[in-house]
Amino acid sequence: MEKNQQILLAARPQAQVELSHFKWVEKDIEPPGESEFLVRAHYLSLDPYMRGRIDEAKSYAAKVELGAVMVGTVVGEVIVSHHEKFPVGSFVETHTGWQLYGKSNGAGVRLLPPKPVPLSAYLGAVGMPGVTAWIGLNEHGRAEPGQTVVISAASGAVGSVAGQLAKLKGCRVVGIAGGQAKCDYVVNELGFDACIDYKKNEALTLSERLAVACPKGVDVYFDNVGGPILNAVLEVMNPFSRIALCGLIAGYEDPQRLAVTNFRSFLVNRIQLRGFICSDHRPLWKPALEALAQGVASGAIRYRETVAQGLQAAPGAFIGMLRGENFGKQLVKLI
Amino acid sequence: MEKNQQILLAARPQAQVELSHFKWVEKDIEPPGESEFLVRAHYLSLDPYMRGRIDEAKSYAAKVELGAVMVGTVVGEVIVSHHEKFPVGSFVETHTGWQLYGKSNGAGVRLLPPKPVPLSAYLGAVGMPGVTAWIGLNEHGRAEPGQTVVISAASGAVGSVAGQLAKLKGCRVVGIAGGQAKCDYVVNELGFDACIDYKKNEALTLSERLAVACPKGVDVYFDNVGGPILNAVLEVMNPFSRIALCGLIAGYEDPQRLAVTNFRSFLVNRIQLRGFICSDHRPLWKPALEALAQGVASGAIRYRETVAQGLQAAPGAFIGMLRGENFGKQLVKLI
Repeated sequence: MEKNQQILLAARPQAQVELSHFKWVEKDIEPPGESEFLVRAHYLSLDPYMRGRIDEAKSYAAKVELGAVMVGTVVGEVIVSHHEKFPVGSFVETHTGWQLYGKSNGAGVRLLPPKPVPLSAYLGAVGMPGVTAWIGLNEHGRAEPGQTVVISAASGAVGSVAGQLAKLKGCRVVGIAGGQAKCDYVVNELGFDACIDYKKNEALTLSERLAVACPKGVDVYFDNVGGPILNAVLEVMNPFSRIALCGLIAGYEDPQRLAVTNFRSFLVNRIQLRGFICSDHRPLWKPALEALAQGVASGAIRYRETVAQGLQAAPGAFIGMLRGENFGKQLVKLI
Repeated sequence: MEKNQQILLAARPQAQVELSHFKWVEKDIEPPGESEFLVRAHYLSLDPYMRGRIDEAKSYAAKVELGAVMVGTVVGEVIVSHHEKFPVGSFVETHTGWQLYGKSNGAGVRLLPPKPVPLSAYLGAVGMPGVTAWIGLNEHGRAEPGQTVVISAASGAVGSVAGQLAKLKGCRVVGIAGGQAKCDYVVNELGFDACIDYKKNEALTLSERLAVACPKGVDVYFDNVGGPILNAVLEVMNPFSRIALCGLIAGYEDPQRLAVTNFRSFLVNRIQLRGFICSDHRPLWKPALEALAQGVASGAIRYRETVAQGLQAAPGAFIGMLRGENFGKQLVKLI
């Protein structure tokens, strides 16, 4: 009989995450109990928030204990069920972590309609990253038609959706991404108006390049990264502009990089900043997911995936994602 | 016939403001034209925002040109009038700047009721500083009964009113001020629950002292100063807390002091930050001023003034205020 495979947290990183911080193990599959069901994972989602969970420091969610299965969301198929709402053969999104098989009592599990989008999209554009984009743009950024929206990590799972939603609203949308290939994708495939390669050395500073790309200034900044990029954007924010802050990937390995040196802009421009995570806004998930599913099904929202093969590839793919080596949503295919 | 006296901006400060940056002049009084009136100022208000106006850097309002009269708000009496809404003998708040006599066409001028508060209060608790406190607390901070509100520059014109309004709402209110005398005043006369002297060297850090004074964490931070005090407060902010930012006095002379090193707290705690200035919220002035006048008249809102004597004392009093040497609202008596 097939065994379960898991990736455990073996040690906490001091700075950079390394493969040695993880441990692969094989063990028996735990059968589901009363009112439980067993899921065979097809795809594991790798997300920047996981970096925060393996630190010792307090964050918005409990940290992963040493020796425990890494946290994570998967999509997969119910293969054994003692739960009437989740029959065998149904597909679900569930939070069973970095393992092939996981059981659940149904709490927090989303039953996935077989159509209209591919299964993996429920971990990306029609899942948590897409909802994060939708909430940040509509609830916190409150982008209006004709306004200018800047998005960092623009080719990523969240940023790519945020930018396309802003384009659908009639905004001017400028992305920031690392490397020419990502910038080309953001403009040519996702339809952003412009994209700035922050890794490219140019005569102009990043904020000067932003000023060129945003001749009317910046009304909404959707920030996934913080740090030096945030400082550059602060120089071109308009009066009464908004910053939706949903990630600080610039500082996971070195919190000092997150220092905001242009803080005066918040007062001078009366900027509204809102840190948020999508799980704080449960009532918004339904309208957000409906809009996202429709957008993906119609082709109005496009996405790209980087897919690592097999559970043992997960730690390396995670480390690569933290370095920005992925292109679009980072997944691990488990079947 | 009496002459007008003015204080002009003679030079821009590179860092610290000095007396040599100002110039006192005497000149003829300009008679008011058609639909204008002439005001004899009784009190000039000195406010931290003026520091921003004498810099070269862009801010939310136009800078004072070299050789121009320093900007500022006064209360005074109409002594010549060709404007039916502002008859001779009426008292007004007007923005004629650092001078004894100024004319106006009525734009932006507030007619002051003779009661129920002293004339000088219209520059403080029942004027712009009081309205700033009211808007920051109610509109941006949204303090609820039972929540904990922290206020920097707690003995100042804005902070003292903000804290008393929060107490009237049923909040726990903790001030931060420089020196034992100010802290005693904040607790014993204004009724704050506690006040922390940030200038005092103690074994505990400022954030540790805040944690002691705020056993349930901080729900609203009313920030007048920015800088190291903001960084300390960020360590004790609660999830979903709010920061109303209305001043950055810590950084006027050295912007590097304003760097926010605890920026991660904005994401971890999903903090909402709003930079604001009271003139952006004109529709709120009427309800705010009514509440403030009532509070002062009834004795529920108390205030203190530091009054310099005569226009020539204004530059020195302004410099002292930037150093925190004033106690409560800084005024210059001109008559």
